[in-house]
Amino acid sequence: MQGYILKIAYKGTNYCGWQVQPEKQTVQAALQTAAAEVFGCKVDVTGCSRTDSGVHAKGFVALVSGDGLPDIPLSSLPLAINTKLPEDIAVLEASVAEEGFHPRYSAKGKEYIYTVHNSRLRDPFSTDTAWQFQRPIDVSHANELCQEFVGRQDFTAFMASGSKITDAVREIKYFNAVREGDNIVFTVAADGFLYNMVRIMVGTVVEAASGTKLMPIKDIISSRERANAGITAPAKGLTLNKVFY
Amino acid sequence: MQGYILKIAYKGTNYCGWQVQPEKQTVQAALQTAAAEVFGCKVDVTGCSRTDSGVHAKGFVALVSGDGLPDIPLSSLPLAINTKLPEDIAVLEASVAEEGFHPRYSAKGKEYIYTVHNSRLRDPFSTDTAWQFQRPIDVSHANELCQEFVGRQDFTAFMASGSKITDAVREIKYFNAVREGDNIVFTVAADGFLYNMVRIMVGTVVEAASGTKLMPIKDIISSRERANAGITAPAKGLTLNKVFY
Repeated sequence: MQGYILKIAYKGTNYCGWQVQPEKQTVQAALQTAAAEVFGCKVDVTGCSRTDSGVHAKGFVALVSGDGLPDIPLSSLPLAINTKLPEDIAVLEASVAEEGFHPRYSAKGKEYIYTVHNSRLRDPFSTDTAWQFQRPIDVSHANELCQEFVGRQDFTAFMASGSKITDAVREIKYFNAVREGDNIVFTVAADGFLYNMVRIMVGTVVEAASGTKLMPIKDIISSRERANAGITAPAKGLTLNKVFY
Repeated sequence: MQGYILKIAYKGTNYCGWQVQPEKQTVQAALQTAAAEVFGCKVDVTGCSRTDSGVHAKGFVALVSGDGLPDIPLSSLPLAINTKLPEDIAVLEASVAEEGFHPRYSAKGKEYIYTVHNSRLRDPFSTDTAWQFQRPIDVSHANELCQEFVGRQDFTAFMASGSKITDAVREIKYFNAVREGDNIVFTVAADGFLYNMVRIMVGTVVEAASGTKLMPIKDIISSRERANAGITAPAKGLTLNKVFY
């Protein structure tokens, strides 16, 4: 069974996330259809993550596999698939998958970017890709709060309630907030993320750094109680930026 | 007759340009409706320019006027109007208009930005706001070509054929091309622009700086023949950035 690794980017606004669902427009379904057309046979497409509805990606990794896939030169594969894909999805790179490679289980970590448009006035160019937050955020305070998350800790408090995961220990490698004009851009990498984890972390930091009274981050973490953390930031500000293997 | 000057931004993708047209969605119509709701009376809205369908703006200037407009504090006016506007239009600033001010006729010049996504692979995040051009563009050559346009010249060759303007002399203050990642960003300012002028200038420079044989820019200008210039770059890459008064 042969396989190609594809690095893809997509604007998630018009998709019900990555994963195939009946009657729904998903990125996986679009890629499966496009790749099957290009290879001229049935293909399986697996992804590195199940991104939620409205979440974007700049470095999503997918594996296209199938029995007897024809050989297509790697240099022309991205363009060939792109011509079959809708405009809001693009294949950026292609490589040959080694035996046993799995986009999700082989991943050592991921990096997400979260963009907050911190202004009383909205930006018509980022309504789909940033969370508009009107109250001023103290970005250096936000960045200090981010540092409290770094390290190997139990992040149960930052997992969507109702999740069935029992081991919520994850290692956050880095988590930073920087101002870029009216935007505050969060970058976070970890060996893995719990459901809604980045969005709850960002929601909590944004609230705390803009005047909402919350427990200290360390105490929220050690409480292991979702109710002590802040709001879940909206999906549209989130972008899966990189996957590490 | 009282008037407020509004600086507005809009993503033009879903509009048939600025100007009111029967049965069409336009930015002027949207602003007129929103402002009338906020002021509670009929208002006139005039703009600094008639942007085309799909063209964007970050610093468009509009005048809202009417007899007996109620006083609304300037600091709350942008937000008040924004709540009545669709998400792809935003009022950024408001000020009181001096008697006789006209957004178009009082303007001393304008600055446009044009974005080219110069890559074989499309960017799903800029399909509405950049022109994807696959062949490599030599940006330093492009920037040299831009300089040939600077100054007071007759730009008949860079005006959409069929335009009825008789005096095509305009003064270009500056015209630059810089690379930002995979994008090439053109910035151009002039005392005024002919119909499609920026788009034809950019189309010509992009073609010439990517291997298409064209006459030297100076010769195209002096020929006063539209046919000697290059293609008209698509509307979606163009943004009205500033108006000078």
